[in-house]
Amino acid sequence: MKVYYFDNAASSWPKPAQVTEAMSQCMNEYAANPGRGSHQMAVKAGRLLLEARSNLAKLFNIKNPVDISFAFNTTMALNQAIKGFVRAGDHVISTSMEHNSVRRPLEFLKREKGIEITYLQADAKGNVHLNDVKEAIKSNTALMVCNHSSNLLGTILPIEQISEIVKKHGIRLLVDAAQTAGTVPIDVERMGIDMLAFPGHKGLLGPQGTGGLYIHPELELEPLLHGGTGSQSEKIDQPSVRPDRYEAGTQNTVGITGLNEGLKFILHETVEKIHNKEWQLIQRLMEGLNQIEGIRLYGPDLGEDKTGIIAFNFAEMDASEAAFRFDRQFQIAVRAGHHCTPLAHESAGTLKEGAVRASVGYFTTEGEIEYFIEAARKIAMT
Amino acid sequence: MKVYYFDNAASSWPKPAQVTEAMSQCMNEYAANPGRGSHQMAVKAGRLLLEARSNLAKLFNIKNPVDISFAFNTTMALNQAIKGFVRAGDHVISTSMEHNSVRRPLEFLKREKGIEITYLQADAKGNVHLNDVKEAIKSNTALMVCNHSSNLLGTILPIEQISEIVKKHGIRLLVDAAQTAGTVPIDVERMGIDMLAFPGHKGLLGPQGTGGLYIHPELELEPLLHGGTGSQSEKIDQPSVRPDRYEAGTQNTVGITGLNEGLKFILHETVEKIHNKEWQLIQRLMEGLNQIEGIRLYGPDLGEDKTGIIAFNFAEMDASEAAFRFDRQFQIAVRAGHHCTPLAHESAGTLKEGAVRASVGYFTTEGEIEYFIEAARKIAMT
Repeated sequence: MKVYYFDNAASSWPKPAQVTEAMSQCMNEYAANPGRGSHQMAVKAGRLLLEARSNLAKLFNIKNPVDISFAFNTTMALNQAIKGFVRAGDHVISTSMEHNSVRRPLEFLKREKGIEITYLQADAKGNVHLNDVKEAIKSNTALMVCNHSSNLLGTILPIEQISEIVKKHGIRLLVDAAQTAGTVPIDVERMGIDMLAFPGHKGLLGPQGTGGLYIHPELELEPLLHGGTGSQSEKIDQPSVRPDRYEAGTQNTVGITGLNEGLKFILHETVEKIHNKEWQLIQRLMEGLNQIEGIRLYGPDLGEDKTGIIAFNFAEMDASEAAFRFDRQFQIAVRAGHHCTPLAHESAGTLKEGAVRASVGYFTTEGEIEYFIEAARKIAMT
Repeated sequence: MKVYYFDNAASSWPKPAQVTEAMSQCMNEYAANPGRGSHQMAVKAGRLLLEARSNLAKLFNIKNPVDISFAFNTTMALNQAIKGFVRAGDHVISTSMEHNSVRRPLEFLKREKGIEITYLQADAKGNVHLNDVKEAIKSNTALMVCNHSSNLLGTILPIEQISEIVKKHGIRLLVDAAQTAGTVPIDVERMGIDMLAFPGHKGLLGPQGTGGLYIHPELELEPLLHGGTGSQSEKIDQPSVRPDRYEAGTQNTVGITGLNEGLKFILHETVEKIHNKEWQLIQRLMEGLNQIEGIRLYGPDLGEDKTGIIAFNFAEMDASEAAFRFDRQFQIAVRAGHHCTPLAHESAGTLKEGAVRASVGYFTTEGEIEYFIEAARKIAMT
């Protein structure tokens, strides 16, 4: 049965065919331990990781691929960055648009180490104002952490300008690229990003179980995972050599093999083209939904830059009921609820009822968009 | 080209065909976010995780599957268990046979929180003596952590008896089952295990990027990862509900789908049969190697219980050179070096030169064993 998949902001689907094919080949031919043995299968696995790392470096304009370490998911990368960097006595600036994968590690450090946090209040469209960033800076501010784009509203934050402000005060910038890696151009040099956390299974078109963290070469973090690295086994501390320091234990070779195919696909198509296509699709979807009586859209207006996400509600219908009807009556997959980001709902004014989120991907068709609008119209009418 | 794969202790290979087939099907049909949406693909992904959890519970005799949380690898599970359980002022008992995935987190807590650690010295065959366990107990001993079987020597520790001793003092027992999950019977009830960390990609025959941790229902750990759980999004702390508390971020649905097929295969074959077959294979390999002049074997003697691992050295040949020759001249994949376990090498008397490790799996054939012995004979002669 055909599924109309509008949940790409959770996991992208479908993937390019070569992602799954490469994973099968890896399982059948060389799923050994990368960097742990000198035999040919282990060497091939190691080479594959190197290739994926190099493709990530190319995509994000990272000079040295070893400054990227692989992770289980963006949450793990963000936990590594936040818990590995922030120390007792530090002040951190963040925003009301953050996912719980940022907010919960920060709140943990507040409880555990007494760090201070300022959450900048975004406006109802998800914008964070640069003046608020300036005003939040204190003498002990060590880190600014924000997403590149909201997972609820799709609003894209002005990372480059935020970086300019915080850099003047020696503050490091951690960016959560969960919603933009592979779908919005990212250049860590130009944008002044010190740490970049990203998923493999969303815009990068790889499988779940993959993701990573870029760490500026000047920074040395306490590792989140301590364990075997296949290097300097006799040391009781993690080795300082990268990427080993941040990659304890067996890596997900088969997942990274799939991710590598996603990366090659994206580098070939170009992120610019992908962003442009997803923007066109979401604009058409917004236009269509806008014309349906009783539907309220949240986030940036028509014509403004954003990612391929739209959050909305039907008048007097619970978001989860709407999602249920999209699924059961129309085989449309959307997500309803609070999307792990309660403060963003507060900003958007949807804390009580939540919202339906529809998110397109590079493989979404115009026909699917029209089908979605028609389904929404029918749901709104009954 | 045919590879003779003797590196199953790192990652098992090959896998049952249905592991890879199920992964492809998942990628093509339902690789959405489990537990994060109500649409049919998300529900199917969620159901799959539930099924894998139930099969793990069956395998390890765990009453409630939600007491198992999935992890990236055993290292992550061990970091969760150790860092989530041990508090400042605690004393921990461990052994000289532990992998760096146990030793390094412990040493980190020693530096960071000033915990005390006693490493029980194993004998040259990898045995830990029960009397030493008794004598190491102090009034502030909170945890005993040990492997079920050494990743260097294959020695199986008497978990049930260790548990009996420590339980009398209210000490909790964490077992690293990296080398035994799926290949040696494990029953958390009978063996008195409070926490069990296990990989998905070794004896359980699943892909890399999978693993997990069983946590006794009485224990509540500080989560290693803080982040989104799809539940109680408005809370600033991780929810206490299991498995959500220990599973922040998107889970590796496709990996767990593969793992689930490995589990079904094992439950059908039975762990007893697998252990018996691997034991027969490794006995024959030991017998053959024993007859080659200049080869020194380490670990348990012929006829003693052990896992499918044998560590050895050639007289006056570096372990890594021997591994290189196995690979290049004979297409035999073994591992050489220190295997992330320096104290175990000290115990075995191989700290300086390391060792070659050959590890069999359920799919290793008798013919491959004979081929290995013949290759070793040729390497020893030249």
